[in-house]
Amino acid sequence: MKKILNDPKNFVPEMLDGLLKAHADQLSYAANDLRCIVRADAPVSGKVALATGGGSGHLPVFLGYVGRGMLDGCAVGDVFQSPSADQMLEVTRRIHGGRGVLYIYGNYGGDVMNFDMAAEMAGMEDIEVRTVLVKDDVASNRDPEKRRGVAGMVFAFKCAGAKADLGGSLDEVEAIARKTLANVRTMGMALTPCIVPQVGKPTFTLGEDEMEMGMGIHGEPGISRETLKPADEIAERMLRAITGDMPVGAGDRVAVMVNGLGATPPEELYIVYRRVHDVLTGEGVKIHRAYVGEYATSMEMAGCSLTLFRLDDELTTLLDHPARTPFFVQV
Amino acid sequence: MKKILNDPKNFVPEMLDGLLKAHADQLSYAANDLRCIVRADAPVSGKVALATGGGSGHLPVFLGYVGRGMLDGCAVGDVFQSPSADQMLEVTRRIHGGRGVLYIYGNYGGDVMNFDMAAEMAGMEDIEVRTVLVKDDVASNRDPEKRRGVAGMVFAFKCAGAKADLGGSLDEVEAIARKTLANVRTMGMALTPCIVPQVGKPTFTLGEDEMEMGMGIHGEPGISRETLKPADEIAERMLRAITGDMPVGAGDRVAVMVNGLGATPPEELYIVYRRVHDVLTGEGVKIHRAYVGEYATSMEMAGCSLTLFRLDDELTTLLDHPARTPFFVQV
Repeated sequence: MKKILNDPKNFVPEMLDGLLKAHADQLSYAANDLRCIVRADAPVSGKVALATGGGSGHLPVFLGYVGRGMLDGCAVGDVFQSPSADQMLEVTRRIHGGRGVLYIYGNYGGDVMNFDMAAEMAGMEDIEVRTVLVKDDVASNRDPEKRRGVAGMVFAFKCAGAKADLGGSLDEVEAIARKTLANVRTMGMALTPCIVPQVGKPTFTLGEDEMEMGMGIHGEPGISRETLKPADEIAERMLRAITGDMPVGAGDRVAVMVNGLGATPPEELYIVYRRVHDVLTGEGVKIHRAYVGEYATSMEMAGCSLTLFRLDDELTTLLDHPARTPFFVQV
Repeated sequence: MKKILNDPKNFVPEMLDGLLKAHADQLSYAANDLRCIVRADAPVSGKVALATGGGSGHLPVFLGYVGRGMLDGCAVGDVFQSPSADQMLEVTRRIHGGRGVLYIYGNYGGDVMNFDMAAEMAGMEDIEVRTVLVKDDVASNRDPEKRRGVAGMVFAFKCAGAKADLGGSLDEVEAIARKTLANVRTMGMALTPCIVPQVGKPTFTLGEDEMEMGMGIHGEPGISRETLKPADEIAERMLRAITGDMPVGAGDRVAVMVNGLGATPPEELYIVYRRVHDVLTGEGVKIHRAYVGEYATSMEMAGCSLTLFRLDDELTTLLDHPARTPFFVQV
């Protein structure tokens, strides 16, 4: 297993310890538990607080987006494992600034169960919690309600976080999260698996000339396993999977994210972006912002995902709002 | 070969095309050649201009640091190949704002030959060019003058770029670049090779349980090939290689960069950072800023490097100065 680590069972606590030391000016933790990450200045009084949570192994998702203009806190689980309800409750208590807390996280069973429990417990302490689930992965299910959440969640953090930063109410911030996600779709593909440290072997296998379209970020099976295709074809296939589900056309304005899953070099992501850009602009779609890089990873998995975010004036303003977190700075 | 690309011989032009389309608000190019990257607002009149250059395959190095507060231009070569003198000359012409141009780049033979020629040709057009070579890789040679340039160059871009942004003269900006580099050392290690697209096979081989200490970013041989060690030991070995060459101790102030070479997940980089942080702070060294992420890569190479930058008040102020480039934003 080619990983830089000490005892695999300390992977998450040591990672968190290093991350909190590197970003002590921006991040802190609640309840004496490194897995309960909060903004260093939490709670921000009079602001709706945003929380997320989920398993480790996806940096910058989830905790990398805790900071000004995005999230207030994050409960961190072990690699690909849900955090506990107690951790999410501790985060919720610490970030609550008196105007309620919005949970935004990916639609995974363990997270839903634990965070619903946390929300209920917070409610008993008179902290109002609302929940918006991210279900942007078009490949994961035909039924939009059963889809998993992947890289598109970053746009929900960004726009709902901006709305909260601008003083929005819990109703308003929740509405922005829902509106954002109604306009966000993602499709991914993988070339190689990743290795869960405590397991020590690849999560799946793919042949030397194979790729899998629609692969999930934990190695969940995709739509088709096939011979590796050229970058342009991969880009178009991802784009069509998205626009087949959420049409965009002449006059529409979008943000585009080409996200690397871990081992894919930025050079290759830009080759993918190029094709997406050319196809969309050729169809008269205006690209307002492009995000190319690693936004939601699966450790050393090679591959990428494409996210489209369909914008109106309100969402554009919120997307453009400044943000500063350890992994996302926008001026 | 598991890469997302089209025809391998179009790897660099397609990457550049995508990158320029994604960052059209910040970047442009000179002489109708995508390989001559310049700031979109070049030339900045009355400012000393900074240029760099080198082979592709190292993003964000080199062109990712072109932008406000850092570099004005960059000549881009093919993967691991030097750009031509003509490309560097075109960049130089476009970015010259009337106060001279400083070249800062890594100490590699092809680059030195081509960029010295470009400087000479620019001189014949009455553009004054100075050159500062980056030689921060302590593993590459015992003789400091013969060392290669690696991730530490980012600190030279940052501080010299800040000095130019603040109105410094060519003499002053050059002096800051030299002072910065006199206080910067890097040491790296690799777990896996990378694949040059046009070659289609790994640049070298390493056994399943092997690592190489001191590996260069093009796969140049390092100091020792050995059994993979725990992260803490790797961190300490890199740190000692650096402090053996540039002592730091109680009362010193440093910036620390833990740089991923491409495929190593950020989680692992933070585990390395943690140990570096604990050892340095245990010895009374103050860490002013930590940079953990991908700053100078070798495509899909797994591994990391450690850079220490010893600061005084002047360098601290310049390091803290705001910057905004496609790959580096500091507020």
